[in-house]
Amino acid sequence: MNLGIGAVGHVRILVLCALLLAGIDAHAQTDPLPSWNDGPAKQAIVEFVRATTDKASPKFVPPEARIATFDQDGTTWVEQPMYTQVVYCLERVQVVAEKKPELKNVEPFKTVLSGNREAMAKLSMKDLEKILAATLTGMTVEEFNAEVKKWLATAKHPRWNRPYTELVYQPMLEVMRLFRANGYKTYFVTGGGQDFVRVYSEQVYGIPPEQVVGSAGATQFGYDKAGRPILTKVPKLLLMDDKAGKPEGIHLVIGRRPVAAFGNSVGDKEMLVYTQAGAGARLMMLVHHDDATREFAYGPKSKIGTFSDALMAEAKKKGWTVISIKNDWKKIFAFE
Amino acid sequence: MNLGIGAVGHVRILVLCALLLAGIDAHAQTDPLPSWNDGPAKQAIVEFVRATTDKASPKFVPPEARIATFDQDGTTWVEQPMYTQVVYCLERVQVVAEKKPELKNVEPFKTVLSGNREAMAKLSMKDLEKILAATLTGMTVEEFNAEVKKWLATAKHPRWNRPYTELVYQPMLEVMRLFRANGYKTYFVTGGGQDFVRVYSEQVYGIPPEQVVGSAGATQFGYDKAGRPILTKVPKLLLMDDKAGKPEGIHLVIGRRPVAAFGNSVGDKEMLVYTQAGAGARLMMLVHHDDATREFAYGPKSKIGTFSDALMAEAKKKGWTVISIKNDWKKIFAFE
Repeated sequence: MNLGIGAVGHVRILVLCALLLAGIDAHAQTDPLPSWNDGPAKQAIVEFVRATTDKASPKFVPPEARIATFDQDGTTWVEQPMYTQVVYCLERVQVVAEKKPELKNVEPFKTVLSGNREAMAKLSMKDLEKILAATLTGMTVEEFNAEVKKWLATAKHPRWNRPYTELVYQPMLEVMRLFRANGYKTYFVTGGGQDFVRVYSEQVYGIPPEQVVGSAGATQFGYDKAGRPILTKVPKLLLMDDKAGKPEGIHLVIGRRPVAAFGNSVGDKEMLVYTQAGAGARLMMLVHHDDATREFAYGPKSKIGTFSDALMAEAKKKGWTVISIKNDWKKIFAFE
Repeated sequence: MNLGIGAVGHVRILVLCALLLAGIDAHAQTDPLPSWNDGPAKQAIVEFVRATTDKASPKFVPPEARIATFDQDGTTWVEQPMYTQVVYCLERVQVVAEKKPELKNVEPFKTVLSGNREAMAKLSMKDLEKILAATLTGMTVEEFNAEVKKWLATAKHPRWNRPYTELVYQPMLEVMRLFRANGYKTYFVTGGGQDFVRVYSEQVYGIPPEQVVGSAGATQFGYDKAGRPILTKVPKLLLMDDKAGKPEGIHLVIGRRPVAAFGNSVGDKEMLVYTQAGAGARLMMLVHHDDATREFAYGPKSKIGTFSDALMAEAKKKGWTVISIKNDWKKIFAFE
């Protein structure tokens, strides 16, 4: 047990350790971002981390203020042809309908159960909300976690035929590790469900549940029939963590303005604007999907992950760095 | 810059450092809780921290799960004769009324401005809500922070004539430090306003803003007249972090069940119940205000910080440890 008290008599040992550990840093010459090609994007990241952690630099950021936020879908893992969580919800409709057969003849469940992709693509936002409520609420937090875990263990992405959790971008994992190794807290700030992402964020990205900000529904505390305390997920939205909801979610959960923010679409614009508006060193980056061969290339009219022409113009005007998957990433996935 | 990569060639230095640092622990015999009298409460804390951080113990808790939550009012600082934040809001009514003179003739502001303590004590919950909305919302997050900071610098507690931030319980500061020194993340889970507590929590308690869970209102992202992005506090309650709201707030912001929880009133019961229901080692403690001479002694009918007879019975039944201020605390405040 550490007693938490300055052991003054042992300062010499601590100084010795600090010197020895500093020696390790000074001698490690390994590239911290091996999956990145040399270029302005890689350089911007490495230089930002160096400058903000160098006490002699005017850009130095004190350790407690080192907050870096990352969007998830399209920024740290594949989001095409459909958000992973939406795939989960659509596939869960089967399970839910087995328990509640009356849903089989009710829209939008009927359409989802038909498997008719064309009809499903036409479902409205209101339909999707009904599907989310039916598949993401009405169970305890533990039941939900267990269901998502089970699904992730077997579900596979149609293009690569691999688990969704393998479709994370190796270059972004390296960025997150580099930030953390330099005293940054890395946070997800995702439009996806906070509870959904928390299930795998620690194992897949090294981001603990308490550092996941996402769209969040309410829970309700109560007791089950056996008198055990439970938290039940209820269909009441507390935070829609997209667009203006991103800085609002950051304030709600983190309470500090990030100094670095990574996104990939119009849904991330407000997070980058908010990040940039703080004093001192700032880093704003956008992943641009321009590699149809190795991943996807989506135009400004893509239904998800929209990278509009206006966003590209804004990035240029505001000095945000655009990451070209085609040019900046030597490798996209760990399995390549 | 730390490159975040295992420097295999330097393992020997790391091992040496580990051995030297372990030596410090083994030799430090200083009492980690010097403001506590020996007794079952102190023993429960020290033994819990020892057992949960000892890899050989069946009660070992892995570092990532080490979450300890603390109520604030009445648990880590004085809450009598009035919650500090309520004092703030009542005093802010003056400032708000200067900017909006029309409020001077409108209730409940008229009563507050009269200074008639007897009339003020009779204000209803609805009146209080109007006062909270008028004094805690309608400004940017930065403006609010600046106002609270300014107030804290001059406001004084009527009994001790000292700033409220000096009326923190030294024994509880020691407990927080002991937990943190042993790899625990310490969180506030307070019925008080999340934004209010965040203003001073890092400086006063060593708890960073991102580890404050409290009653939270929404913010709204937008732009000011100069085109600068701002977050405005709006009168929409997202989380009432009291009673059942405490486990709900813990799930929203932390997403993990705590292994240790400290409270002092019926408002903390659900947090302790929720904490206890997890698997493995658990610590649930309640501060009992039974020292009218050095602090306050409140009976079961106190308007704030209610420690009812039912709560005392529940603590006994469930094996929660009750901290007697009179008997367990050698010293209450740092300035004594």
